[in-house]
Amino acid sequence: MKITLIGAGNLATHLGRALLNAGHSIIQVFSRTQESAEVLAMQFSPQSQTAHASLQSQSEPISVLNPAHASPQSQSEPISALSRLSPDADIYIIAVKDSALAQVIPQVCAVNSRAVFVHTAGSMPISCFDGYATHYGVFYPMQTFSKARQVDFSVIPCFLEASDLDTAQVLKTLADSITSSVFYLDSDRRRYLHLAAVFACNFTNHCYALAQQVLQRGDLPFDVMLPLIDETAAKVHQMSPCKAQTGPAVRYDQNVMDAQIRLIADDPLLKDIYERMSMSIHQYISANND
Amino acid sequence: MKITLIGAGNLATHLGRALLNAGHSIIQVFSRTQESAEVLAMQFSPQSQTAHASLQSQSEPISVLNPAHASPQSQSEPISALSRLSPDADIYIIAVKDSALAQVIPQVCAVNSRAVFVHTAGSMPISCFDGYATHYGVFYPMQTFSKARQVDFSVIPCFLEASDLDTAQVLKTLADSITSSVFYLDSDRRRYLHLAAVFACNFTNHCYALAQQVLQRGDLPFDVMLPLIDETAAKVHQMSPCKAQTGPAVRYDQNVMDAQIRLIADDPLLKDIYERMSMSIHQYISANND
Repeated sequence: MKITLIGAGNLATHLGRALLNAGHSIIQVFSRTQESAEVLAMQFSPQSQTAHASLQSQSEPISVLNPAHASPQSQSEPISALSRLSPDADIYIIAVKDSALAQVIPQVCAVNSRAVFVHTAGSMPISCFDGYATHYGVFYPMQTFSKARQVDFSVIPCFLEASDLDTAQVLKTLADSITSSVFYLDSDRRRYLHLAAVFACNFTNHCYALAQQVLQRGDLPFDVMLPLIDETAAKVHQMSPCKAQTGPAVRYDQNVMDAQIRLIADDPLLKDIYERMSMSIHQYISANND
Repeated sequence: MKITLIGAGNLATHLGRALLNAGHSIIQVFSRTQESAEVLAMQFSPQSQTAHASLQSQSEPISVLNPAHASPQSQSEPISALSRLSPDADIYIIAVKDSALAQVIPQVCAVNSRAVFVHTAGSMPISCFDGYATHYGVFYPMQTFSKARQVDFSVIPCFLEASDLDTAQVLKTLADSITSSVFYLDSDRRRYLHLAAVFACNFTNHCYALAQQVLQRGDLPFDVMLPLIDETAAKVHQMSPCKAQTGPAVRYDQNVMDAQIRLIADDPLLKDIYERMSMSIHQYISANND
């Protein structure tokens, strides 16, 4: 399929790479800044793959375009004005921050009345497109993307929603080409999915960050935590988080908790998080052990 | 070495298995309940390894005793009264909950003035032993242990502290026999290590639990989160938690955050945790991006 990407952030970068590797063409890349658009468009232009690959450091691997899929004409054009959008794409993927959707959608959808338009935002409803497009939907790959880290897109669950059955089929075909994990999910339930992802990913990562802060108080390196972090993640493949829980809060060991709170009494927000998480663990375990 | 284990909880179970596999003898196992002591002692008695192994389900693998290390006389005796402690062990490992240490240590240390005594508690100081033993220390394997899940002890960092150089050497030899990751760390800094472990493991696991609660509101299964959970843990092997962060709080996308808070407004503690974690993420990223 011929695809135009609106946005040049983490998600657009990784999704674009995955689509390109699956044999699709990224005909245009829009970013508010021309430079960002150019950096990404260069990655999506097969001619520059070799040069680009040689620029990558070993710690930042990049997917190499499958030559079987590459076609010399699939040059990707960088643009920084929506007025320069081409009407030639089959699908326009809008991967901008949520707060920009309301402004971007009307301009993008005006370009081609027969194409399919999707956004990639977990928390935004499909109704964002109401009145602006005929065929539209949501294409939400649930993962944490950073530009400097390669991800295996084939295991990323992708959640779809569509305005009509034909569009649903188009999005399903597109999703199937990059991942083996595709689901239909309506906007209402997707809100819960995205909120759960905030807990399981963003708040989890912040627990790592807070651990790092605490380690710095003891002049200890973050690396010592990695076996524990890995095992904590691995455990919930085998047992529920409730069964997996250990530590002072689940034992409700008040002496240990009080001593730990004293160590961070100078940081009210950190102390508050410690107390509330401990209380929540205790409530949760008590309720689930009944 | 001849070892006596005081405690039959998660840590005692896993540490005992690792020590046994390394060729040590667990001569006695103490638990407050005779049944728990017997269950564990049976696992630590080579004669019952075959029978025991056959009782394990495939989902709960157990290390198989290395026959080269097994000696027929190394039967493990279960006891539920500290008065039955034998003076024959080289090392007494006290793996009871922190609040029980003050009561247990004097009784255990009275049994043999030449032996080495250790506790396994991250947050408790070595001074717990002051006045009760001559050779003593701390042996803290930092990991989350559940009985139903096998762990690879060889990668678990083990933090040691000792009353004297001879004891330090004994503990180092013991730790080296079960893991390749051994550190000396004093009580003062170990408090920070243990607090960091609470954030990186217990609070992280609770974030998974809260994600599960939120998913249930949308009638969604927990399993869809596993690729995200795995990637979140894997990312911090490559980049700092600060660089790895994504999501609405780091973008400070107030619209998304407000909408997410409305979804859990009926649960004040959950809402509170959401708000404080988001605020903490924002503060942390702002401070570290300067």
